[in-house]
Amino acid sequence: MKTFDEITTIVNQEIAKLNWSKEPRGLYEPIGYVLSLCGKRIRPALTLMACNLFTDDIQPAIAPALGIEVFHNFTLLHDDIMDKAPLRRGKPTVHIKWNDNTAILSGDVMQIAAYQLIAQTPEKYLKEVLTIFSDTATEICEGQQYDVDFEQRNDVTAEEYLEMIRLKTAVLLGCAMQTGAITGGAKPEDARELYLFGIHIGLAFQLKDDLLDVYGNELTFGKKIGGDILCNKKTYLLIQALNVAKGENLEQLKYWLANNSGNPEKKISAVTELYNILGAKKICEDKMSFFYEKAIANLEKISIDKNKKQELRKLAEKLMSRND
Amino acid sequence: MKTFDEITTIVNQEIAKLNWSKEPRGLYEPIGYVLSLCGKRIRPALTLMACNLFTDDIQPAIAPALGIEVFHNFTLLHDDIMDKAPLRRGKPTVHIKWNDNTAILSGDVMQIAAYQLIAQTPEKYLKEVLTIFSDTATEICEGQQYDVDFEQRNDVTAEEYLEMIRLKTAVLLGCAMQTGAITGGAKPEDARELYLFGIHIGLAFQLKDDLLDVYGNELTFGKKIGGDILCNKKTYLLIQALNVAKGENLEQLKYWLANNSGNPEKKISAVTELYNILGAKKICEDKMSFFYEKAIANLEKISIDKNKKQELRKLAEKLMSRND
Repeated sequence: MKTFDEITTIVNQEIAKLNWSKEPRGLYEPIGYVLSLCGKRIRPALTLMACNLFTDDIQPAIAPALGIEVFHNFTLLHDDIMDKAPLRRGKPTVHIKWNDNTAILSGDVMQIAAYQLIAQTPEKYLKEVLTIFSDTATEICEGQQYDVDFEQRNDVTAEEYLEMIRLKTAVLLGCAMQTGAITGGAKPEDARELYLFGIHIGLAFQLKDDLLDVYGNELTFGKKIGGDILCNKKTYLLIQALNVAKGENLEQLKYWLANNSGNPEKKISAVTELYNILGAKKICEDKMSFFYEKAIANLEKISIDKNKKQELRKLAEKLMSRND
Repeated sequence: MKTFDEITTIVNQEIAKLNWSKEPRGLYEPIGYVLSLCGKRIRPALTLMACNLFTDDIQPAIAPALGIEVFHNFTLLHDDIMDKAPLRRGKPTVHIKWNDNTAILSGDVMQIAAYQLIAQTPEKYLKEVLTIFSDTATEICEGQQYDVDFEQRNDVTAEEYLEMIRLKTAVLLGCAMQTGAITGGAKPEDARELYLFGIHIGLAFQLKDDLLDVYGNELTFGKKIGGDILCNKKTYLLIQALNVAKGENLEQLKYWLANNSGNPEKKISAVTELYNILGAKKICEDKMSFFYEKAIANLEKISIDKNKKQELRKLAEKLMSRND
């Protein structure tokens, strides 16, 4: 069994081997750039760890793991255009460093590159891996569309929000786990439980992100704290605060939602204070724990030796207690 | 053997069966829209015709043929954003009718939908079809990048231009032919000749497009005549005119290239007149015929009964003599 750190080293080595020094430079240079920004690379690590639960030979999982990571980075490229985001991992986004057209076209070729990596899955698993990958990729686009649609709506329910983050974030973690399981030769029921483990970890992961955006430390989080509050993003915190708020608190919350031009620091601290008073932080933390427990239950059901599950359990804990 | 018209009827029926009435509407509605604009649908027709050369059962070619058409339409969606094109087939483009973000995201999910159709290729041909499809898709993005790069350059050679249109346009026709051949059970050497037939027809097809843009009839062509001239697009006509021009003619050509703000009709007629004087039209027509003859030579090499090649030959002739 490899540790998470050993797996991450392999992932980093394999990503470094991908060749983006090709012509035309304008097409491939931005891909090398975005992949060099060194995100957490959780998804390919999950694929290799899931594979490693069932076999010591993780080689068959490497190409699809990389495909999943390249696909994830492609979605960041296009999402950043749509969100007009200036920074990603503290560096200028591709559409800022180059331009929108470059970000569109380099993203398109990344999506194809992702499929080329997926296509290197050993032939006996190819059809199954390809199907789950395409289904997942479609769901991610649907999640992004719901996210865009929600900006125009004031009646988004908690259930709708959770379904949106399931599509936009969680399914790719599920796909990463399932792909690892399949290429590791897992039984279908174990692959299914690992898919659900990924889904539940993904949901908890996104709720943690929502919490960090408000309660995180700017230095470790790497993003400006309160960004979601400033753009009135309908996060789980805001939706639940609106659900719970009554009387004066509700008026205050509505006042700040309508106030987009005043002092940003004032808005952030006022809304954060309301989240605290209304118990929205607690509701969000409880929901996060709920999904975390579900993930652990999925992991426990897998028909392999308990000791082999330790690394994934440790990683799940780490993701929940992270500060960045 | 089915005729081209019979094949087109099948293509239209199969495209109509694709279901885009799904949620979220904002994601899928633009796809139904762009596919309803009814382009020529040459690519899926070529796939089915290529398959039909080797077998009466064209069923295995249908899903990949549709995948190729969906992919082609995805590239139009994204190219139209990059080119800021207001119209496509006489109707508002998706980024105009909706917005840029919609065109990006609906395009992304179309690319995945294309792969889902390709993935329905019978399993014994899947790996081969998937490889050629991804390689082709990558080349198309490279061609688009060169096209964008060429806008900033004044020293594009005829060879560079031909390589750009090979990537941007011809390889997908080659891929369409080869995919049909593979799913029809063709021998590798026949599949290869049909790929080259597609490449050569594609090159001739694009040169015909360049000619129609200057010498076409606005009513039948469906686009404004002289559009390439107005935006100084480095077409084969312009590159060859610049190659041949000397003295006063060269001065005149340079004058009009530098003149972007005067009367558009005046610029179009002056540059067209220069193309005529310089023999650029003839050079372009000769190159088109050169590729057409190469395509016919590829077709002749295929090891099947001569009569079976008649429909493809007729289609090639039709594409060369078209007015739209």
